[in-house]
Amino acid sequence: MTHKIAILGASGYTGAELVRLISEHPNMQITALAAERKAGQSMAQVFPHLRHLDLPVLCKISEIDFGQIDLCFCALPHKTSQEVIRELPKTLKIVDLSADFRLRDPAEYEKWYGNPHVALEQQAEAVYGLTEFYREEIRTARLVAGTGCNAATGQYVLRPLIAAGVIDLDDIILDLKCAVSGAGRSLKENLLHAELSEGYNAYAIGGTHRHLGEFDQEFSKIAGRPVQVQFTPHLIPANRGILATTYVHGDPQSVYETLCRAYENEPFIKMLPFGEAPSTHHVRGSNFCHIGVTADRIERRAIVIGALDNLTKGSSGQALQNANLMLGENETTGLMMAPLFP
Amino acid sequence: MTHKIAILGASGYTGAELVRLISEHPNMQITALAAERKAGQSMAQVFPHLRHLDLPVLCKISEIDFGQIDLCFCALPHKTSQEVIRELPKTLKIVDLSADFRLRDPAEYEKWYGNPHVALEQQAEAVYGLTEFYREEIRTARLVAGTGCNAATGQYVLRPLIAAGVIDLDDIILDLKCAVSGAGRSLKENLLHAELSEGYNAYAIGGTHRHLGEFDQEFSKIAGRPVQVQFTPHLIPANRGILATTYVHGDPQSVYETLCRAYENEPFIKMLPFGEAPSTHHVRGSNFCHIGVTADRIERRAIVIGALDNLTKGSSGQALQNANLMLGENETTGLMMAPLFP
Amino acid sequence: MTHKIAILGASGYTGAELVRLISEHPNMQITALAAERKAGQSMAQVFPHLRHLDLPVLCKISEIDFGQIDLCFCALPHKTSQEVIRELPKTLKIVDLSADFRLRDPAEYEKWYGNPHVALEQQAEAVYGLTEFYREEIRTARLVAGTGCNAATGQYVLRPLIAAGVIDLDDIILDLKCAVSGAGRSLKENLLHAELSEGYNAYAIGGTHRHLGEFDQEFSKIAGRPVQVQFTPHLIPANRGILATTYVHGDPQSVYETLCRAYENEPFIKMLPFGEAPSTHHVRGSNFCHIGVTADRIERRAIVIGALDNLTKGSSGQALQNANLMLGENETTGLMMAPLFP
Amino acid sequence: MTHKIAILGASGYTGAELVRLISEHPNMQITALAAERKAGQSMAQVFPHLRHLDLPVLCKISEIDFGQIDLCFCALPHKTSQEVIRELPKTLKIVDLSADFRLRDPAEYEKWYGNPHVALEQQAEAVYGLTEFYREEIRTARLVAGTGCNAATGQYVLRPLIAAGVIDLDDIILDLKCAVSGAGRSLKENLLHAELSEGYNAYAIGGTHRHLGEFDQEFSKIAGRPVQVQFTPHLIPANRGILATTYVHGDPQSVYETLCRAYENEPFIKMLPFGEAPSTHHVRGSNFCHIGVTADRIERRAIVIGALDNLTKGSSGQALQNANLMLGENETTGLMMAPLFP
Repeated sequence: MTHKIAILGASGYTGAELVRLISEHPNMQITALAAERKAGQSMAQVFPHLRHLDLPVLCKISEIDFGQIDLCFCALPHKTSQEVIRELPKTLKIVDLSADFRLRDPAEYEKWYGNPHVALEQQAEAVYGLTEFYREEIRTARLVAGTGCNAATGQYVLRPLIAAGVIDLDDIILDLKCAVSGAGRSLKENLLHAELSEGYNAYAIGGTHRHLGEFDQEFSKIAGRPVQVQFTPHLIPANRGILATTYVHGDPQSVYETLCRAYENEPFIKMLPFGEAPSTHHVRGSNFCHIGVTADRIERRAIVIGALDNLTKGSSGQALQNANLMLGENETTGLMMAPLFP
Repeated sequence: MTHKIAILGASGYTGAELVRLISEHPNMQITALAAERKAGQSMAQVFPHLRHLDLPVLCKISEIDFGQIDLCFCALPHKTSQEVIRELPKTLKIVDLSADFRLRDPAEYEKWYGNPHVALEQQAEAVYGLTEFYREEIRTARLVAGTGCNAATGQYVLRPLIAAGVIDLDDIILDLKCAVSGAGRSLKENLLHAELSEGYNAYAIGGTHRHLGEFDQEFSKIAGRPVQVQFTPHLIPANRGILATTYVHGDPQSVYETLCRAYENEPFIKMLPFGEAPSTHHVRGSNFCHIGVTADRIERRAIVIGALDNLTKGSSGQALQNANLMLGENETTGLMMAPLFP
Repeated sequence: MTHKIAILGASGYTGAELVRLISEHPNMQITALAAERKAGQSMAQVFPHLRHLDLPVLCKISEIDFGQIDLCFCALPHKTSQEVIRELPKTLKIVDLSADFRLRDPAEYEKWYGNPHVALEQQAEAVYGLTEFYREEIRTARLVAGTGCNAATGQYVLRPLIAAGVIDLDDIILDLKCAVSGAGRSLKENLLHAELSEGYNAYAIGGTHRHLGEFDQEFSKIAGRPVQVQFTPHLIPANRGILATTYVHGDPQSVYETLCRAYENEPFIKMLPFGEAPSTHHVRGSNFCHIGVTADRIERRAIVIGALDNLTKGSSGQALQNANLMLGENETTGLMMAPLFP
Repeated sequence: MTHKIAILGASGYTGAELVRLISEHPNMQITALAAERKAGQSMAQVFPHLRHLDLPVLCKISEIDFGQIDLCFCALPHKTSQEVIRELPKTLKIVDLSADFRLRDPAEYEKWYGNPHVALEQQAEAVYGLTEFYREEIRTARLVAGTGCNAATGQYVLRPLIAAGVIDLDDIILDLKCAVSGAGRSLKENLLHAELSEGYNAYAIGGTHRHLGEFDQEFSKIAGRPVQVQFTPHLIPANRGILATTYVHGDPQSVYETLCRAYENEPFIKMLPFGEAPSTHHVRGSNFCHIGVTADRIERRAIVIGALDNLTKGSSGQALQNANLMLGENETTGLMMAPLFP
C-alpha cells in the first residue's frame, strides 16, 4: 500500500531533504508540495538536484485536498507552523518539523519563542518526536513534534546518563558545533560563504539558545527534578553535521556501559569503542548517530561526544522515521542509506 | 537471486563508494573485501562511515575464494590492476575501475602510462565501460574497463556532437574543473586541506593529462578520422564533482537538439533547458549527469557544460551500472538515489 | 605629508579592504568613513576584524567636509556611484571602484548596465584605472575608474598579446573562475555557504557578463578593429581569487616572450617560468598578479593563465595603487605585503 | 640598523609565515634559509606565494655562517630542534618554535614527548615565549622557547583569572577548536582535503594532548599549587585559527574586569564588549588575539572565549614579537597588519 504524502514548506532545506529521502521510500508517494511564495514553480527550479524526480508542481497550502493525504509533513518556519496546523483537518496525521509543538508548557513556549501559542488544542495532543524515547506514543500519535536538531544530539548523549543516575546533574556542559544548514535557506549576512567559510565562532552563548527549552523540559522530566545544562553552540564552516561534546562528572566506564545498554538494539544509534571519537564526516547524509565516550585524565570526568547530520537524523530523517511508525511501516524503511564520504 | 560480490582495493575512495552503493542494492551481497596493506582490519576502522554495515573483514586478494564470487570489482591503482587481473580466473566477471584496460592500443597505453602492458590477453577482451554508448557489449562482456572520470564527463558532452557532425572537429576546447577526491586517498602535498582549500589552479596543462588517451581513442573512432581536443583540468577546493565546460563551433540550437535526442531515454543523463547551466552541487553523491547548452554572443559558438560526481557516475556508480548489466539486473537498480544537497 | 582620505561605501568588502590596506600606509590617514545605512555605528561593529584600528565612526556622505579631504575612494554600488560623484566637489580627487566610469561610450554603458548614465560630465574626464597601462594618465587624473576584477585579470593576460599581434584576434576564449567575494556582501541565495561550498558552476554564460563591455572597449582600442572574446565566468567555493584560463591561437614561445617583455619592470605582475601554472592560493590578500604560459600539444595553441586576488589587485589594491600615483606617492607604497598562505 | 636573520626549517608553514612577516619588517633582513631536504631549491619553488621576494636559496644548516647572523629562528620539528640547537654557537640569539624548550622540567618533557631531552644545558637557559607574561625575561634572553599555539590561546584566556583568584581552580574546561595548519605541512591522511573538509571531530581527548604539559606547568606556577584543566581539542575544516571556549566557575563580571585590567595596555590582546563572542574570522593572518566573556544563565558560571591565528599570534608572529624584544626593536614592528577578511 502506498501512502500519499504532502510536504508543506517544500522550498526549504528540510523540505528538500524530505523529498530526497521519500524518493527512495517504496511505500510513500509525494502527492502535494506546498511553498507559498514559490507556488507555480517546479521543484527542479527551486532545487535542481531533484530534477530527475517526477514531482507535483509547487502549490499553495490552500490548494491541497487534504482528504487525499495520508500524512503531512510541515517544514514551515516557527510560528507559521502553528497557524497552519491549527487549520488543517483534525484527523490528518502530521509530522511537524518546526519548534511549535516541542514544549509541553505554553508558558515555556512563550518564554523561549517570544509569542503566545495560538494552537493550544493541537499543542496539547502533540507527542515529542525523539523516536528512540517516545516510540510507542509516536506509533499512535496524530501530531508529532520533531525535535530541534541540536536538542536531538544533546539528548542522545545525555538522556540515558540522566535516567541511570550515573552523572552529576548539576555540572553538565554541552559544547556543540553545528554546520550552517541548520539555519535554513534564509538570507542572513553571517550565513554567506564569504562570512562563514574559513572561520568559526560561538553564538547564542550563556543560555539563550532556544533549544535549551527542550533540554530543560526533557532532562528535568527524566530526573524528576530541575536540571539545567550549560549549552554553547558554535557555527562551523560546513554544510551538514552536529557534534556535541559533553563534559560530565561520573565514572567514565559506567557512563559508557549505560549508553551501550541503552542503544544496543537501536538501528540508528551506534556506540563507538571506548576511547574513540565520532566525526560528523562519518554520518553525513545518513540517519545514523555516532556516540563515543572517553575518560579524562581527571578522575570521574568523562567526555561524551555525539555526531549526527542535522538535516537527516536531526530533522527530516527523524521525521520520516516517525512517519514510518505512524503509518505502520517498518521504522527503518527508506532510512538505511550509508553516509556520503568523502 | 543474490549475486556474490568481491571488491579489490576496498581501502580507497572508489572502493568505499562501491560499498556505499552496493549496501542499498537488493540483489548484491559483499562477500569479500580486499586491501593488501590493511588486511585484518575491519572496514569500520578504515572507513568509519560504513560502521553500521555488516561487512567481511579486509583480507588479502590471495585469501579470496573466487569460485564463490559472481562478480569482482577491481578498484586498484593503475598498473597493479593489470598484474592482479591477469592472475584471476579467466571466467570471472570483472569490472575494473583503473586505467589499465581503457585503451585499445597497447602502444597508446604505454605512451600515456609509461610502462608496457602486461595483461595483453585480458586487454584484448575488455569492453570500454561508458555504459550509455557500449551497453550491448557490456551486457555480454566478461571484463569491463571503467572510464576515467574526466573522460566520462567530456564524452557525455561531446560524443553525440561528434557523431552527428554538428561541430567543427578541429576546434574543441574542454576546460574541466574537478574536485579533489578524483586524486584518491593518496598522501600528496597538494591534496592537503591547507594547500587546497580557498584556492584553485590548472594542472597537467597543454595536453599531458592521461585521460586524453581516452578522448583521442573514442572521438577519433566516432569521427572516423583523428580528432584531438584541447583539454585543461583544474583542481577545485571541493571533494566531489566534475564540471566540463566545452567550447565548440557549431549552431547552438543544433547542438542542443542533438544532445536532447541522444539522451532522451537515458535514465541518468539529464538535459537542462536551453541556456541553463548545470552545477556540481546538484549531482553530488548521485549517478546523474546534468548537461546544459548555451549560445555565445558570437555566432556559431556554443558552450556545452556537463556536471557529474566523479566518484559516482564518474567511477563507482558507473561500475555498478555496468555490473547490473553484466549480471542481468535492471541497469538502474541501486543507483536512483537523489543527490545530496546542500 | 599625510594625505587625508575618505571612503564612501565603507560597509562593503572593497571598503573594508581599503581600510585594511590604508591602515599600513605611512602617508595616508582615514579621515571619513561613510556608509549610509550603518551611519552611527563603529567600523568594529560592521567589520570586527578592524577592531584594533582607531577609525572615525561611520557617517553619512552628507556629513563629510570634503574641503578637508585629499582623496576620496568611492566603493559604492553601480548607479549609486555616479549619482554621488556627480554631486561631489569638482576638484576632489576620486578613485571610483564601481562600474560607472569604466566605459567611455555612454551608449555602451547603457547597453551593459541597463540605465542611462547621469554623470556624463564626470564620465568624460574619467581615466580607466588599469594602472600598468594607464599610468601616466592616472598620475594627472582627477577621477579614476577602477576596472572590473574579472576585466583586470583578463586584460593582464591578453593586452600585450593583442598589442603585439602574436595571437589570432578572432579566436580568444577566456574561461574564468572567480571566488565569491567578488559578488560583494549582498544577501543572495546563491552566495550562502550552504549553496556555494562544495560545488561550482558557470554563470552569465554566452556573452552576458557586464565585464565584456570593458573587454570589448579595451581590446578593440588596442587592436584598432573590433575584437570580441568568448568569456565564461564560473563561481568557485572560495572567498578570494580569480583565475583566468585563456585559450589563444599563436606561437606559445612568442606569446610567452611578449608577456615577459611587457611586464619585466612591473612590480606587481610576475611571469612564471614557461610551462608553469599560477594558483589563486599564491596571491591571496596581496596585490600581485601571477601569469603562466603553456604550449598545448596542438601546434600554435597556447594556454595563458592569470591569477590575482579580486579584492586586492582586482579592486581595492588597484585603487590604492592609483591613489598613490594621483597623490605623488611611490606607486607601491602600502602594497608590497606578501600573500597569505596557507 | 638591519638585523641579519636566519630561519631553520624554512619549508614548513611556520617558516613561510616568518618569511611573510619579516619581508615587511623595516629592520630585518633574511640572510639564510635552511631546509635540509629541499636545499638547493628556491623559496619560490617551495612556496610560490613568496615568489616576489628576493630571498637566499634554501641551504643546509651546516652551510650557514652563524657568525654573520644576529638572530636565528628555528622552525624545525620537535626533537630535531634540540639536536640542532645544541650544536649552534652558544652566543647566538635563538627563537625556537618547536616544543623542545617549553617545559622547564626535563622529566615532564620526557613524559609528554616520549624521549629524553638531549640539550639540557640550553633547556636550562630557555625563557618561555609567551610575550605578554615573560616580556622582561625575553628582552635579555639568548634562547626563547615559543609556546604551543593551543597553549598560547588557553593561557591568554586563563592566566589572569588564575592569578587573580577569581575562578575555581578545580573546574576549568577548555574546549578548543583549531584549524588544520597547526598540524603543519605533513602528509597525514586526516589532513587531506577530502578527509577534513565538510566535517569535524575531537582528537587527543581525555588529557593526552601535549600542550597540557604547558598548561600544567604555567597554571600551577601561577596558582602556587597543582592545577589541572580539562582540555579537548577539535579539528575544524579551516586553514588558520584557534578558538578556545573556556568554562569557568566564578563571577562573570569579575572575570571580565580581571581580563580587561590585565590586557588594557597590550597592543595585541583585544577585549570585546561584555557578552560578545570573538571569531577566528576576525584575526586571520594577524597577530591579534580577541577575547570575549559571557555570563551563563547559571549563576557564577562564565564562558570565556579567545581567538587567534595559530600561525601568527600562536607561532610565527609571537616569534617575531619576541625577536623584536631580543634585538631592541619596538615590540610591535612588522606585526600591526590588519587581519584578512573575508
